[in-house]
Amino acid sequence: MAMLLIKNIGVLATAVGNNAHGGAAQHNGVRLIRDAAVLINGDAIVRVCENGEAPECDNVIDAGGRLVTAGLVDAHTHLIFGGWRQHEVPLKLRGAGYLEILKAGGGILNTLTATRKATEDELYERAEKALNEMLLSGVTTVEAKSGYGLDVENELKQLRVIRRLANEGGFSVVPTFMAAHAVPPEFKGDPDGYIEFIITEILPKVADEELCEFVDVFCETGVFDVTQSRKMLEFASIYGFKTKIHADEINAIGGSVLAGEIGAVSAEHLIAIDGAGISSMAKGGVIACLLPGTSLYLNKDFAPARKMIEAGVPVAICTDFNPGSCPSSNLQLCMNLGYLKYRMTPEEVLTAVTLNAACAVDRGDTIGTVEAGKQADLVIWDAEDLDYLVYRMGSNLAKTVIRKGKIVK
Amino acid sequence: MAMLLIKNIGVLATAVGNNAHGGAAQHNGVRLIRDAAVLINGDAIVRVCENGEAPECDNVIDAGGRLVTAGLVDAHTHLIFGGWRQHEVPLKLRGAGYLEILKAGGGILNTLTATRKATEDELYERAEKALNEMLLSGVTTVEAKSGYGLDVENELKQLRVIRRLANEGGFSVVPTFMAAHAVPPEFKGDPDGYIEFIITEILPKVADEELCEFVDVFCETGVFDVTQSRKMLEFASIYGFKTKIHADEINAIGGSVLAGEIGAVSAEHLIAIDGAGISSMAKGGVIACLLPGTSLYLNKDFAPARKMIEAGVPVAICTDFNPGSCPSSNLQLCMNLGYLKYRMTPEEVLTAVTLNAACAVDRGDTIGTVEAGKQADLVIWDAEDLDYLVYRMGSNLAKTVIRKGKIVK
Repeated sequence: MAMLLIKNIGVLATAVGNNAHGGAAQHNGVRLIRDAAVLINGDAIVRVCENGEAPECDNVIDAGGRLVTAGLVDAHTHLIFGGWRQHEVPLKLRGAGYLEILKAGGGILNTLTATRKATEDELYERAEKALNEMLLSGVTTVEAKSGYGLDVENELKQLRVIRRLANEGGFSVVPTFMAAHAVPPEFKGDPDGYIEFIITEILPKVADEELCEFVDVFCETGVFDVTQSRKMLEFASIYGFKTKIHADEINAIGGSVLAGEIGAVSAEHLIAIDGAGISSMAKGGVIACLLPGTSLYLNKDFAPARKMIEAGVPVAICTDFNPGSCPSSNLQLCMNLGYLKYRMTPEEVLTAVTLNAACAVDRGDTIGTVEAGKQADLVIWDAEDLDYLVYRMGSNLAKTVIRKGKIVK
Repeated sequence: MAMLLIKNIGVLATAVGNNAHGGAAQHNGVRLIRDAAVLINGDAIVRVCENGEAPECDNVIDAGGRLVTAGLVDAHTHLIFGGWRQHEVPLKLRGAGYLEILKAGGGILNTLTATRKATEDELYERAEKALNEMLLSGVTTVEAKSGYGLDVENELKQLRVIRRLANEGGFSVVPTFMAAHAVPPEFKGDPDGYIEFIITEILPKVADEELCEFVDVFCETGVFDVTQSRKMLEFASIYGFKTKIHADEINAIGGSVLAGEIGAVSAEHLIAIDGAGISSMAKGGVIACLLPGTSLYLNKDFAPARKMIEAGVPVAICTDFNPGSCPSSNLQLCMNLGYLKYRMTPEEVLTAVTLNAACAVDRGDTIGTVEAGKQADLVIWDAEDLDYLVYRMGSNLAKTVIRKGKIVK
């Protein structure tokens, strides 16, 4: 395997977790290594040097005194969908609410129809385009959910696209099965019946084809209640899948409490989380996946990140990329919002999009930090220091991107 | 001169002003031309074709059915500065206010020191980098203010950099003299004295070298009051310069009223504008340059754009790019905020960053629309329609950028 040396790194910033390699990923700070160099062998980091030390190597990238971090991880996207929803812009400006848009054939049902209609190849091409853009902005690993098919054929179709993106496209994608994203028209008014259908008809097939690692459910007023969500995730666990839960986005109906009780890997959104939810998540070691782009886009409040951090809940920041509530795949912009709106420090923001996000997709042992033994996912930033990364807004600051030891930008 | 044809334009969207070529630029809608083609001769548009018509031409760009608009205009930036201010991030997170940061050597005085210290070449390189990034995102004309020198030598230095960016760099930049941006340490507590100094010592030299087109002043509590601002701008008019005014950003102390009274070309910020200010601006034909990126970045309110539009005040949207309150030069992001926060329609947003912004830099007769006789500044967007442009967030959607008839991206 070819060796590659990144030398002349002004500052190497890498998150520090609870364990040597990842683990529970609270905010234990960031290690700043000055005048660093990183030696890569094949797809792995083999050595991190300090104080101007650098081994001999034929292949060298000169970082020019810039900041280097681990490749970013986007731990929450709805990547696989047909159609955009820009036609809702005039409706929304007229003040149409969620339900009115839904009645006009808009909202998630519009994406459902477009996704069902799309071929696997069409979905693949769309997702590939988005993933390439994300990669060029420094995001080397992306979680991707199903949840716009909502029947056997189309949920499997979405998950197969994710598998192809990994196998054919070479992308680092983490598949999450989320048929429990909405109640489809076929089960209108019968969420219990739909959960039963997922468990008996779709989940076993997903397991047969080994199409996902995680199962997620939308626990919210008017979607799935706590009992239904618990049932969904308990059956997911029986099949050996890890769990996530969309919780407390609008109302704290118990989703985040449930997350802690069942030991979900992560809970998502959490804008309306209360003290009970925070306690339960802290106790259960659940990672909070916060989605500031969605708060911005929907003119909603921002999740109480500081409260969670102070309570010992590890916080990740993700895009929520989807065609409705956040048609943005820009994780760097979410890092700005992490600073501006969550009032997280640059160190906390870096941890939130590297180690904690890696842990939220259960890859804290292989990615998310720059350490010997980890996968060589790295970004050289057009930045002198970490503060600059959260301070500058609206520019793609990723200068060089390395994924699995290969220079992709 | 070489001819160039852009054919196969799905939708050509171009703003409609009050007059045939620019003029007062209220929101009179956007003309949408389907199946269009644009013929360019040298640096000028010579013909706009509809309904699939297209003349013969050797040089052809196929727009692939995409959206085409005029090149974007950013009518408010503080482009010329030394140093960034990321070191203020920890201070701001600790809750330090503007004054505390200023006391610690931060804020505008920090940029003042860095700008005074920087050579003309250093300032040129920094600005060139920013302008190139803006150009690649579809911004073909940029207004640039001085105002970080605040003495004879360094204000002239800033303005000379802007001239070089036009003459050597080929950029379309519009120079604004804004020594009345803050009171420098040399005149601490004596804004009257500083205004007198500007008028007697700097302004004549700026006029001698013909270094600006506009003069701007920061009319705000604690900076320059209405009397001082009026004096600054009246003297500017005597020298033949057009005027702009930073007004009502924090408090409505009369800046926007003054703008209408003296017939300023534009007033800027306007977050706190009241009814009297809106009436005066409407009566005086003043363009409102709104800066949503700054509201986002400073966690402030967003200016009441709808009230101004309803009162007949033409609205432009600009970045306010500067190292303190908006370290973002991303005008596309500001377009998203125009939709999401100002609740402006896609047509109003397009007008705000093309024709109205062109009028705000007094170039409504040459740029800002796609019409025969205008300068060939055009963008082919990776978008099917205008709604998409305000709906998608965080991606650079500019696929092809043409400035003065030349393909620059």
